Amino acid sequence: MIKRLTIFGVGLIGGSLALALKQANYCRHIVGCSRQVDHLQRAVELGVIDEWTLDPAEAVAGAEIVLLAVPVGAIRSVLESIKDHLEPQTIITDAGSSKASVVAAVQAVFGNVPENFVPAHPIAGREKSGVEAAIANLYHGHKVIFCPLENTATEALDAVKKMWQIAGATVETLDVDQHDQVLAATSHLPHVLAYSLVNTLAGTDYVEEIFRFAAGGFRDFSRIASSDPVMWRDVCLENRAAILRALSEFQSNLEQLKTKIEISDADGLLQAFQHAKSIRDSHVR
Amino acid sequence: MIKRLTIFGVGLIGGSLALALKQANYCRHIVGCSRQVDHLQRAVELGVIDEWTLDPAEAVAGAEIVLLAVPVGAIRSVLESIKDHLEPQTIITDAGSSKASVVAAVQAVFGNVPENFVPAHPIAGREKSGVEAAIANLYHGHKVIFCPLENTATEALDAVKKMWQIAGATVETLDVDQHDQVLAATSHLPHVLAYSLVNTLAGTDYVEEIFRFAAGGFRDFSRIASSDPVMWRDVCLENRAAILRALSEFQSNLEQLKTKIEISDADGLLQAFQHAKSIRDSHVR
Repeated sequence: MIKRLTIFGVGLIGGSLALALKQANYCRHIVGCSRQVDHLQRAVELGVIDEWTLDPAEAVAGAEIVLLAVPVGAIRSVLESIKDHLEPQTIITDAGSSKASVVAAVQAVFGNVPENFVPAHPIAGREKSGVEAAIANLYHGHKVIFCPLENTATEALDAVKKMWQIAGATVETLDVDQHDQVLAATSHLPHVLAYSLVNTLAGTDYVEEIFRFAAGGFRDFSRIASSDPVMWRDVCLENRAAILRALSEFQSNLEQLKTKIEISDADGLLQAFQHAKSIRDSHVR
Repeated sequence: MIKRLTIFGVGLIGGSLALALKQANYCRHIVGCSRQVDHLQRAVELGVIDEWTLDPAEAVAGAEIVLLAVPVGAIRSVLESIKDHLEPQTIITDAGSSKASVVAAVQAVFGNVPENFVPAHPIAGREKSGVEAAIANLYHGHKVIFCPLENTATEALDAVKKMWQIAGATVETLDVDQHDQVLAATSHLPHVLAYSLVNTLAGTDYVEEIFRFAAGGFRDFSRIASSDPVMWRDVCLENRAAILRALSEFQSNLEQLKTKIEISDADGLLQAFQHAKSIRDSHVR
């Protein structure tokens, strides 16, 4: 049981965790903090949090765990606002989609990474965002990736792990660089491609026809282009190096495939498609 | 009521239409023709067709409508085999995913496009293929795109339209180039991107982690990479020009987005993502 949990950024991610913990009766008191009064008020109305404040110092007073669920670009300023008010035993964790940049922000603010800081990333989301989109079972059956550092305290890790398990998630561990490269490939790159595809189609001659005749495949493929633009801007800025690496690899693969189409290389196309199909069929259920 | 319908290629597409017409009691006699005796026999056993033959001349004798439901790459050779045996009033139509290549095949065989030829493309499919996968409601609520030419006879159009409507589809019209460009953008390009993405990921350092931590977004995004490689090879060859145009536009859009990431253009990224989200949200339910 967590006595007092403070959530910075009560949107889809923070709000869904709050709902899950409340439903499991695992948290006595949840405090929300952000800069948007209307969102915080709505979060109380929806029963997502018990109390809200605009004052970071007040928010962290007496907190057992502080969760940073703001877009990664805002993590540093939140850390600066709470730095001088944290109690020594308070555990801090985050939910950011990139981990090297979060660790760098912590280092910049604290001079080192405190042993009570647990870098974490829940692999779950929805197309909708904001506290209205929060649901108690968002993390059910999903993974949360922990990226502990050498000095991360075992007690802090265990407490944050327990919290996510109560919310229905399983916890796995990667190191920071691995995390950023794996997520760049499986999540960040596909989002960039989906945004780019929709923008490409929007700029062509037959926009109306294109969306009128779009089949189910396109619907699935472009779904992630409806994700929160602010969050994804921040991800692109914060995990820039790994995304650019994955993107370059993709561009070069695509260029090779394009050449096969250009020269009508029937065998080459068949091999490429068979390879992709066999890889996906064997890895994704 | 169609007195006699002849279907070349009794697989998922042709077989499903046959089942729908039989269920609606809209076709007195359906003849199947292909080169695969076992498939044709199975089609009779399943009640999809009434009769089969390996002889194209026999197949088209007395036919009111001839449907070409073979892969687009095989349409020309079927036309050559029936050319000298068609009765003047027989209507011919097809179900190919690309239309310029089909029209070119017709022109090459007949010297011109007969007024009784109706180029058509049902926008429906399943992951499974073959006559065993045929279902009577495949076209229910789906669109069939007609690409009539200037000389296409109204009576032929009406007869084929009625047939698809009986099968539950709605008929819409595009010109040949429009069709090929729209399908290249909404269906063919996304397939190429999905195949390329999966192959890119398969070539990176953390393949196991990549597929282990792949989230729902990736699953959706890459689903179409599990499609039939032979069919998609043919589509790439037959709708080459339109696919290459769409692909080039995509590459240039992606390159611009990459530059924004490289120079950390926060505003530019946000605008691009907001634009894509608003386009998709307003066009796709």
